[in-house]
Amino acid sequence: MIKVGILGSTGYAGGELTRLLASREDIELVFLDSNSFEGRSYTSLYPNLRGAIDLSCTSLDIVQNEYFSKIDVLFCALPHGLTQKAVKAALDANLKVIDLSADFRLKDPVVYEEWYDTPHIAQEELKTAVYGLCEVYREQIPKTDLIANPGCYPTSVLLALYPLMKEKLVGTSRIISDSKSGVSGGGRSLRDGNLYSQASENLAAYGVGQHRHTPEMEEQLSLFAQEPVQIQFTPHLVPMLRGILSTIYVENTGALTEQDLAELYHQYYGDEYFIRITGSETLPITKAVAGSNFCDIGYKVDTRTGNIVLVSVIDNLIKGASGQAIQNMNLLFGIEESKGLTQLPVWP
Amino acid sequence: MIKVGILGSTGYAGGELTRLLASREDIELVFLDSNSFEGRSYTSLYPNLRGAIDLSCTSLDIVQNEYFSKIDVLFCALPHGLTQKAVKAALDANLKVIDLSADFRLKDPVVYEEWYDTPHIAQEELKTAVYGLCEVYREQIPKTDLIANPGCYPTSVLLALYPLMKEKLVGTSRIISDSKSGVSGGGRSLRDGNLYSQASENLAAYGVGQHRHTPEMEEQLSLFAQEPVQIQFTPHLVPMLRGILSTIYVENTGALTEQDLAELYHQYYGDEYFIRITGSETLPITKAVAGSNFCDIGYKVDTRTGNIVLVSVIDNLIKGASGQAIQNMNLLFGIEESKGLTQLPVWP
Amino acid sequence: MIKVGILGSTGYAGGELTRLLASREDIELVFLDSNSFEGRSYTSLYPNLRGAIDLSCTSLDIVQNEYFSKIDVLFCALPHGLTQKAVKAALDANLKVIDLSADFRLKDPVVYEEWYDTPHIAQEELKTAVYGLCEVYREQIPKTDLIANPGCYPTSVLLALYPLMKEKLVGTSRIISDSKSGVSGGGRSLRDGNLYSQASENLAAYGVGQHRHTPEMEEQLSLFAQEPVQIQFTPHLVPMLRGILSTIYVENTGALTEQDLAELYHQYYGDEYFIRITGSETLPITKAVAGSNFCDIGYKVDTRTGNIVLVSVIDNLIKGASGQAIQNMNLLFGIEESKGLTQLPVWP
Amino acid sequence: MIKVGILGSTGYAGGELTRLLASREDIELVFLDSNSFEGRSYTSLYPNLRGAIDLSCTSLDIVQNEYFSKIDVLFCALPHGLTQKAVKAALDANLKVIDLSADFRLKDPVVYEEWYDTPHIAQEELKTAVYGLCEVYREQIPKTDLIANPGCYPTSVLLALYPLMKEKLVGTSRIISDSKSGVSGGGRSLRDGNLYSQASENLAAYGVGQHRHTPEMEEQLSLFAQEPVQIQFTPHLVPMLRGILSTIYVENTGALTEQDLAELYHQYYGDEYFIRITGSETLPITKAVAGSNFCDIGYKVDTRTGNIVLVSVIDNLIKGASGQAIQNMNLLFGIEESKGLTQLPVWP
Repeated sequence: MIKVGILGSTGYAGGELTRLLASREDIELVFLDSNSFEGRSYTSLYPNLRGAIDLSCTSLDIVQNEYFSKIDVLFCALPHGLTQKAVKAALDANLKVIDLSADFRLKDPVVYEEWYDTPHIAQEELKTAVYGLCEVYREQIPKTDLIANPGCYPTSVLLALYPLMKEKLVGTSRIISDSKSGVSGGGRSLRDGNLYSQASENLAAYGVGQHRHTPEMEEQLSLFAQEPVQIQFTPHLVPMLRGILSTIYVENTGALTEQDLAELYHQYYGDEYFIRITGSETLPITKAVAGSNFCDIGYKVDTRTGNIVLVSVIDNLIKGASGQAIQNMNLLFGIEESKGLTQLPVWP
Repeated sequence: MIKVGILGSTGYAGGELTRLLASREDIELVFLDSNSFEGRSYTSLYPNLRGAIDLSCTSLDIVQNEYFSKIDVLFCALPHGLTQKAVKAALDANLKVIDLSADFRLKDPVVYEEWYDTPHIAQEELKTAVYGLCEVYREQIPKTDLIANPGCYPTSVLLALYPLMKEKLVGTSRIISDSKSGVSGGGRSLRDGNLYSQASENLAAYGVGQHRHTPEMEEQLSLFAQEPVQIQFTPHLVPMLRGILSTIYVENTGALTEQDLAELYHQYYGDEYFIRITGSETLPITKAVAGSNFCDIGYKVDTRTGNIVLVSVIDNLIKGASGQAIQNMNLLFGIEESKGLTQLPVWP
Repeated sequence: MIKVGILGSTGYAGGELTRLLASREDIELVFLDSNSFEGRSYTSLYPNLRGAIDLSCTSLDIVQNEYFSKIDVLFCALPHGLTQKAVKAALDANLKVIDLSADFRLKDPVVYEEWYDTPHIAQEELKTAVYGLCEVYREQIPKTDLIANPGCYPTSVLLALYPLMKEKLVGTSRIISDSKSGVSGGGRSLRDGNLYSQASENLAAYGVGQHRHTPEMEEQLSLFAQEPVQIQFTPHLVPMLRGILSTIYVENTGALTEQDLAELYHQYYGDEYFIRITGSETLPITKAVAGSNFCDIGYKVDTRTGNIVLVSVIDNLIKGASGQAIQNMNLLFGIEESKGLTQLPVWP
Repeated sequence: MIKVGILGSTGYAGGELTRLLASREDIELVFLDSNSFEGRSYTSLYPNLRGAIDLSCTSLDIVQNEYFSKIDVLFCALPHGLTQKAVKAALDANLKVIDLSADFRLKDPVVYEEWYDTPHIAQEELKTAVYGLCEVYREQIPKTDLIANPGCYPTSVLLALYPLMKEKLVGTSRIISDSKSGVSGGGRSLRDGNLYSQASENLAAYGVGQHRHTPEMEEQLSLFAQEPVQIQFTPHLVPMLRGILSTIYVENTGALTEQDLAELYHQYYGDEYFIRITGSETLPITKAVAGSNFCDIGYKVDTRTGNIVLVSVIDNLIKGASGQAIQNMNLLFGIEESKGLTQLPVWP
């Protein structure tokens, strides 16, 4: 029995994490921390879990003092600032930590400070963190106690580009990812833009050229390609609950054919449980992955323009957050990687 | 290993049935019949199941001739007309049959003809059918080979009213159910009303006083109460994918309190896996059951008006169709009733 | 040129009021008050009005001291509590006032206190208020300075029931209105239930037996019928932006036929610009009135159950708030009643 | 009084055209043609127009023989194939024609055949056609009898790029437009992809590298720039009713600043009624133009990547179809260009 605690359990990623863990017989949920809802019964916030969860929300102070000693692994879904301190404390308590925030994703604290406007205060721990993109870093993950769970947009972009970057098959200076996310990506916070009346029947670009997932993608892409890679990343908010679709434009400098791509993606991902290659005839759609841990990837070669257009979809709350976190937990504990994550997407 | 075939597998209920069965290791899906899509790969219609299903759609003639002998149980999700013949043939072939259509739900063929404008041509088989409302007819279900799986609206209404009717605690002459369904209830058929542009940002009542689920509800309610019960049933189409919410008005002739109702519903449903009583403080909402086989029920006593208002929610495609069908299959085969149906609802 | 000010201009009703008034050449918008957004440019909150409005939000104190003397009519869309004081001040300043809150709708201050848990502090003014249901009180409206603009739900229910009540043709003791509203009815306030992720793909009943529109309906219905009328009112939240649909159940004590109803509704509403009778073949749908000041009404006689089922739809923000307020303003100023309100609903 | 007929009046663009024209006192709607719904009352198809339109649908043969002589201007919203013959006949009958199809947009019949797989059979008429992008071709429009009303996607893309292309300020070889459209863009046709259950909670790219609006954009962009321009165009289907948002990536070869862009766009569009420049602080969103003829345009200079990112939004059915068609009609008849098109967008 693995004993688990969750910090920041009442956001949407925390809610899905709780749901997915609650269904497992090899997991014991020891505490659910929430800053905003301390003392409230968890199912009053997540009535979908009525009957499955019988915990009330506890506060950070209490869990650190009383509960850290009672768990094996900590999922941390706090906002940055709070995160670094809590992760330090958890590592000091010899816990394994899977952090869903951005705080341990960037290897370079200078880049972190540049994009997050605040110095990193856990740089020692940062050195030990492994970027938890399971399909890429499967070997390294079991060797650390601190997993930096990838961001939702980066997950969709990096999995699509990994084979092309790794094999240095396309241009690295003019990559564009035009990404679109469902509204749950904006979290449960009470902001005007998260209101139904604002978000429904609306489509908006945001953070153009400034979104904090940009350096995360560039760092990883540069590691894949072993050379500096730059990306123009534009996120959009789409009136749906879940799902990210990234449309990625790369220069086809290697004159690859769709057949070449079929072989390449099969070679990299043919054995991956959670990656499904749709090919060039059928492109991925978000509905086909909603509620699951799958990432579907397709591609088109446009010989007229000399571009490759990749389309990649995930469920932002599962493969883009809670599901990938559990996939990391499974790897950390030597459990079958897909355990608890085999739900097929509902339709419609 | 239970060998299963599905007639009419490409409608939304069929799609969910296929998804739920595909995840089970004790089930072998032998064929997926489809009139409209014969020969097409099933995952081209349901890309959510990519990688999990490797069948193409076969036609009714072929499955009857070649495949009926290879299965143990047949799920039938055909339109009426086709249904009665197919069910007859399946029973003749000694199959167990779970019929998701309305054709074997009404015990009285005269009532059937009255509401369906066509005589019933399988009246012998009709006599053997058991109405598959599992929480009510759990004892009878294993004793038959033909289950009439309840309609979506009736499931939500009957489970809410069963304790009150059975105990004869409320008026039986002026029951009103104002029910609301997500658009998937309209099926995958290409009709103007099913178009996104027609259904989104729209709310409509339909079939007022004439919907065919009315006699199904009245027959069952009358059986529960052991006296004739009449219901005014009004279905509505709501711009969401899934979910039924029924708001049911009954006369509180027995002057019941909310405490009385708490005890009554606990007595009837306290041990039921799939029924969750929310009580009177919190009323059920569709989101809390979406993607699951749960039915959530709440109630309010309005002492000012002398009415009881019940609110009941289900996922129309699961508890209202495919999930309940599998629950029936589990009962038919002596398997644990909740097997394959324990998914917790996603949120949001 | 009529000079207009709006208190509480940044809620959704205020936004639509501003939009509708901004298009008129006979209206000058003098100020837009907002408690929450003082000093902000109005179009930063309502970018749809970019180029049409060039005002910033001013605060209540300032408008009372400096601007009340510069306007002819005040629209008041404040929460109750604030409303009564502001209306008093405006009437003292000899303004005409159209109040969109509930504070001057109930004639009986005892009933007000009962449902609003606070005494009414402007009871003298209350006596002069006219309930601004234009199709019913057209004669009285021009004779007052204080219009109580009807609530959204009551507008849909009262217009549907008015002919039946006035003619005493149906039962008055067991009327049920099962009403459904789009999410904009919940306002622009930052509450969990107003979030896209909570409201989308969700359907919920609320305020069962306790909603404050209940006494407003009952008072008016009783005035229509000249006898006490009781209503069971259940509002629901539906995942769409706009629109209210009320499904109303009344006992057909007079054995009316659909032909009788056709004549009755034609007699009452045949000349009304904003009321469209759809009859019994086609029932009203919310999409057909979205963005307009229309109220569409249909009916079904169910001879089996002895009920009449009425269906009534409006745009909650227009006929249910801002449009009806302008209709009242037109009547107050002797302008053609439909002026500025003739927009046809968009589709889809 | 201008006498108007509409071919193909029952699609969504036709419906909005009818609505917008029905509100005008200087327009007489003489006939509404529909292949699919001949004989049906128009308001049975568009119940939003109940009371405003009293026509039934007539067929193409009848209108050509009997009604062409009774109108001044013909709006043609037929599918291609049918269009070319009908336009020929209308021009022969000395009508002014505004064609909403793609058939007269491409100047080069060879390019037409290449992308539409069929030869152009009205090449003489094609020579006289003016591309009805009003803000660009305002001078030429009144001089022709045949307006090719621009496509929805091209309208959003071309208006955004026009100043940059015309002034040759940016690179012309690697322009990317990642465009997103609401579902109404898919029309009223009964296809699986247009179903609510397929389109809601789904996001999909389609026609990657192959969409027929590509040559339309490239031809116009090349005319603007006076040199060959190539564009990578990717349309997407977004779960909302209306609106197009195009995110356009161009190489900032001229090292323009946001201040430069502010001046440029002000110079080109400062006096345009229907174009609103949001600048670089606030980017356009579709909700702010829904139901209107506005095109909102914003921009960001990304000095890090050397790109300019433009964001442009329109209502696909109005500025992208019916509204622009009426704007063209106004220009053709020497009426004020904005007449009948000044509706402000609703919110929310």
